[in-house]
Amino acid sequence: MVQIPRTPTSADVARLAGVSRATVSYVLNKAGAVRISEATRRRVHEAAEELGYVPHAAARSLRAGHSRTVLMPAPAFPAGPLYGQFLSDLQGALGRLDYTVVQHGTAGPHGDTAARAWAELRPVAVLVPAPGLGPEGVRVLKRAGARAVVTLGPEAVEGAHALLMDHAAVGHHAARHLYERGRRRIGVVVPEEPGLALFSAPRLDGARRALAGTDATVTALPLAYEEPAAARLAARWSGLGLDAVFAYNDEYAMLLSRALQDEGVRIPEDTAVIGADDLMLGRLLRPRLSTVHIELPAGRELAALVDRAVRDPAAPPERHRVLGARVVHRESS
Amino acid sequence: MVQIPRTPTSADVARLAGVSRATVSYVLNKAGAVRISEATRRRVHEAAEELGYVPHAAARSLRAGHSRTVLMPAPAFPAGPLYGQFLSDLQGALGRLDYTVVQHGTAGPHGDTAARAWAELRPVAVLVPAPGLGPEGVRVLKRAGARAVVTLGPEAVEGAHALLMDHAAVGHHAARHLYERGRRRIGVVVPEEPGLALFSAPRLDGARRALAGTDATVTALPLAYEEPAAARLAARWSGLGLDAVFAYNDEYAMLLSRALQDEGVRIPEDTAVIGADDLMLGRLLRPRLSTVHIELPAGRELAALVDRAVRDPAAPPERHRVLGARVVHRESS
Repeated sequence: MVQIPRTPTSADVARLAGVSRATVSYVLNKAGAVRISEATRRRVHEAAEELGYVPHAAARSLRAGHSRTVLMPAPAFPAGPLYGQFLSDLQGALGRLDYTVVQHGTAGPHGDTAARAWAELRPVAVLVPAPGLGPEGVRVLKRAGARAVVTLGPEAVEGAHALLMDHAAVGHHAARHLYERGRRRIGVVVPEEPGLALFSAPRLDGARRALAGTDATVTALPLAYEEPAAARLAARWSGLGLDAVFAYNDEYAMLLSRALQDEGVRIPEDTAVIGADDLMLGRLLRPRLSTVHIELPAGRELAALVDRAVRDPAAPPERHRVLGARVVHRESS
Repeated sequence: MVQIPRTPTSADVARLAGVSRATVSYVLNKAGAVRISEATRRRVHEAAEELGYVPHAAARSLRAGHSRTVLMPAPAFPAGPLYGQFLSDLQGALGRLDYTVVQHGTAGPHGDTAARAWAELRPVAVLVPAPGLGPEGVRVLKRAGARAVVTLGPEAVEGAHALLMDHAAVGHHAARHLYERGRRRIGVVVPEEPGLALFSAPRLDGARRALAGTDATVTALPLAYEEPAAARLAARWSGLGLDAVFAYNDEYAMLLSRALQDEGVRIPEDTAVIGADDLMLGRLLRPRLSTVHIELPAGRELAALVDRAVRDPAAPPERHRVLGARVVHRESS
């Protein structure tokens, strides 16, 4: 049986460095208010290094009454490259402000039950991709010491700061573009994958509202991200009588375009196609794919908002519209 | 100024429920060994609910001496769809075993300095995508109470369990396939993006070793994931005299194939192309893209390994080869 070494404590460090435990705590937790000589600091660091001691974040947060942990529940939908990059930028920016970003796993409970699980970690701030948090969840988190709760999604939640991402604008821009290109019978792809309704429903709705009162029609086209599903949709394409399609995003646009081309449908002559997200792959398709470019907030700005909210937990909730959308017109529409 | 409510404590819950603090702790922390009547349990839960009390994970882990937290540092490379799905499955599987998975942000220190930052969170287990941990880092984590340290990568680290992902096998399979298709002058794309050398170097090496002693040559082709870079490489393609290319993965294969086709290079007649990852987009290309299908371990199995290691921290490190690779031959090679 292998001997597992005992975890060194701050008392061990204090003994080796010849200082008090309080001094160890001040030095290693970087408590700025206390003046400690450079020589003492060095002795403490050397003793900690030698013993392999690291401070206990949980103990520190119990003492301080709060942590530097920013909790981000993992999104319940498959994060594409665009959103993945956004999350990664944000984590980097928060890290540079000395926050520890932890992502809570996807599995398990949702909604306000999830909020209780997050609250157990006593984060100083919580950044929640919508949906998955109601006003009660916000209250649970704040009672557990979260100084800032920030939601990212289509709607604000009472008591939380809101970064409003208006996906209706994406559908609006796509539909207006197709209309202006002379199309009147417009299909809108609605992915069947769970979790994506959060984005697809407002995109469809935005397309509908953009064309309300015009002579154009909007047809919802449920579609799974699978070749056979796309082939089935393409096989009944002529019967649908559509002359354009907003394909939800670039990946669905690639899937559906290929199936349409395999059926002999010419793009854009017979059917104009537009995607969204402005991924590299759209530029590599032939014809080159038109798309809605989506602008997400810079990680740096969002990290600054979190930091501001942590410093002033009593400030009234902020609301920011953070999603920009514009059409990039290429050859497919 | 808005009044911030005081965080309720377990003492508040005990008072409202008319029980001791110990009973509150037993009930809410699900300490199985203690027998408590159903009526008392219900009273405690109701009181906690009414007050909005949630247990403090940090306090609980201080008492227990360890947590149920599995820490996964975010990978330092852009996680593609394949790896993203793997991580998400794994998080789900650990969640079902009642672990809380937290991902530590990407930014900040690397290597053994990073290990100290992770150790502050006192995780019961750490799952580290390679590189970024040496034997000293493993010791730091174990001294801080981590019962299991598991690395995912090409090489084992002393003291840690290793899930060995042999990317040389990916290059080996790709190169052997091209050779068997009669190709002799084989290019291997090496992405210029930081962080990817971890995968690209063994893939190139695997291709080289697969063809050592044959009449074939292997040429490394540095390439950034950008259209102009691909166009520049394609413009000097005929001068390179290659008849085949292993394009690192499907996304690079799409980028390079398009640039080659725009230059009038015929695929596969002039140049055979094979990618890796077996993504949907390869099936949608014309000609359909040959690829190396990569099999990653099931989240369930990996979660079981973590759980086993947590239960028996003194067991000798396990080594498992977990990456399977096989060629999917389509039209591009």
